[in-house]
Amino acid sequence: MKVYVSVDLPPDLADKLSRVAEIVGRDRMEEAEAALCFRITADEVKSMPRLKFIQVITAGLDHLPWEVVPPHVVVAGNAGSNADAVAEFAVAMALAAYKRVLHYNERMKRGEYSRDLGIPLVAGSKAAVLGLGEIGTRVAKILAAMGAEVYGFSRREREGPWRFTRDLMEALSGAKIAVSALPLNKYTRGLIKYEHLAAMDPEGVFVNVGRAEVVEKDAAVRILRERPRFVFASDVWWGRNDFAKDADVIVLPNVVATPWVAGGYGNEKVWRNMLEEAVENLLRWIRGEKPRNIADRSDYV
Amino acid sequence: MKVYVSVDLPPDLADKLSRVAEIVGRDRMEEAEAALCFRITADEVKSMPRLKFIQVITAGLDHLPWEVVPPHVVVAGNAGSNADAVAEFAVAMALAAYKRVLHYNERMKRGEYSRDLGIPLVAGSKAAVLGLGEIGTRVAKILAAMGAEVYGFSRREREGPWRFTRDLMEALSGAKIAVSALPLNKYTRGLIKYEHLAAMDPEGVFVNVGRAEVVEKDAAVRILRERPRFVFASDVWWGRNDFAKDADVIVLPNVVATPWVAGGYGNEKVWRNMLEEAVENLLRWIRGEKPRNIADRSDYV
Repeated sequence: MKVYVSVDLPPDLADKLSRVAEIVGRDRMEEAEAALCFRITADEVKSMPRLKFIQVITAGLDHLPWEVVPPHVVVAGNAGSNADAVAEFAVAMALAAYKRVLHYNERMKRGEYSRDLGIPLVAGSKAAVLGLGEIGTRVAKILAAMGAEVYGFSRREREGPWRFTRDLMEALSGAKIAVSALPLNKYTRGLIKYEHLAAMDPEGVFVNVGRAEVVEKDAAVRILRERPRFVFASDVWWGRNDFAKDADVIVLPNVVATPWVAGGYGNEKVWRNMLEEAVENLLRWIRGEKPRNIADRSDYV
Repeated sequence: MKVYVSVDLPPDLADKLSRVAEIVGRDRMEEAEAALCFRITADEVKSMPRLKFIQVITAGLDHLPWEVVPPHVVVAGNAGSNADAVAEFAVAMALAAYKRVLHYNERMKRGEYSRDLGIPLVAGSKAAVLGLGEIGTRVAKILAAMGAEVYGFSRREREGPWRFTRDLMEALSGAKIAVSALPLNKYTRGLIKYEHLAAMDPEGVFVNVGRAEVVEKDAAVRILRERPRFVFASDVWWGRNDFAKDADVIVLPNVVATPWVAGGYGNEKVWRNMLEEAVENLLRWIRGEKPRNIADRSDYV
């Protein structure tokens, strides 16, 4: 069994994997039956004719070159491995905006000591969590601990500290806080339109820590122009890592912007955990067990 | 029974009180046996020779003119009536700083799209909650829901989602997040000194939503100058409402500053709840029941 590994594995994890498989690099990738990668290109996939299994280190699988991945290749993601990091960040963005910390801190720094905006409560307020996977579940748990009335939206019914709905409008209508942790796939691309954002509380906060493309960019811009007290807080951008492409949105006064760091950027503990869980899942496949987080190909192609 | 009321009560609450007592204003305050107030001055206290009970609408009682309040006068605070608001705000400040939302948002607004600081985790990190009353308990519950290892500090042992300690150094040592919700009294004034802040994680965040005077101002300034990554986030100031007096601290780059708004500033629901609970507690006293939140005079004089 040969495994193509395109990330730097710490020695102990490389050892663990080497006990049951041979790690090969780019020069011998054509022999690989499995691949362990952070990102994988179409060229890489095409260079592995014996490929049967791809273990991705990220939770999201939208970046895979699905069109060239043969249907018999099993793809596993890594949901949950950095879910704490992302969920905490989502709540941090939501509260920083909703509780007016950003607003008042900016005023205080300018020497404007007067008070203008009132501070709304999370307790007793409606919050919507979109996407009820590992991240969404953690976000809902934290918001519920704060006394929010949480609505949970996803395609498949899941139990948790929320009122479940498959109706996006029901989830968002009147919501003061909404957090999207939706994966990007063919069902979620462009899912959130103007009418959904407009259904929220006019002084509400919409947080996106999933993928930018789930929200229609024009819809976000329109609502932000129409409702100066509505806040759009996002860690993910339509231009992906080319943030300059979204400068038009980032500079709006009612936007809170961070550069795709929610997943534990620069945090060795989070990265180590992601690698560990990915290797563990790859080992499950090698041992003939069922790996976790197997992608449903039909979500993407 | 006559009650001196120095706040505007909504008609229904005024009616409720009027059924068992006569509400009097400043012109007849010398007849009052009880007082319901937001703030009360020494002159007001001295003008009520028949006074037996003071119901304050705020949770904190440090602003009372204790030196002129006769020992036989029972004073009741209003702890808990806006505890949700304050606790949510404390967590918002802590996360906005700790998760680098403020840092990255500022950079993005300036068009600096690169990443520098790593994003630490709350999950698995040590957090300290100072003061285990209604606010501290709620803060601890939220941090515990995020997976933090919470240490709870107070004078009297209380059960909750924390490891209890009476040792301030034990609570703060190595803590990544600390939230002070301590009341200001003769035991807590100046309690938090340089060595306590220095014992925290050098990239930690100290949040104060209690009273500024609990922290030595010089200690805060010194630690902020020495440790550029340490963050001091405060809603309360040594100059009280005269924020200009603390401009030297507010302008420091590693300070997050808000103008004493945590307790639900401008939030009618929070204010209504505070008035309701204060009236309810006053009615307890009038009916001969034991009011809640009776102050321990020896904490103040």
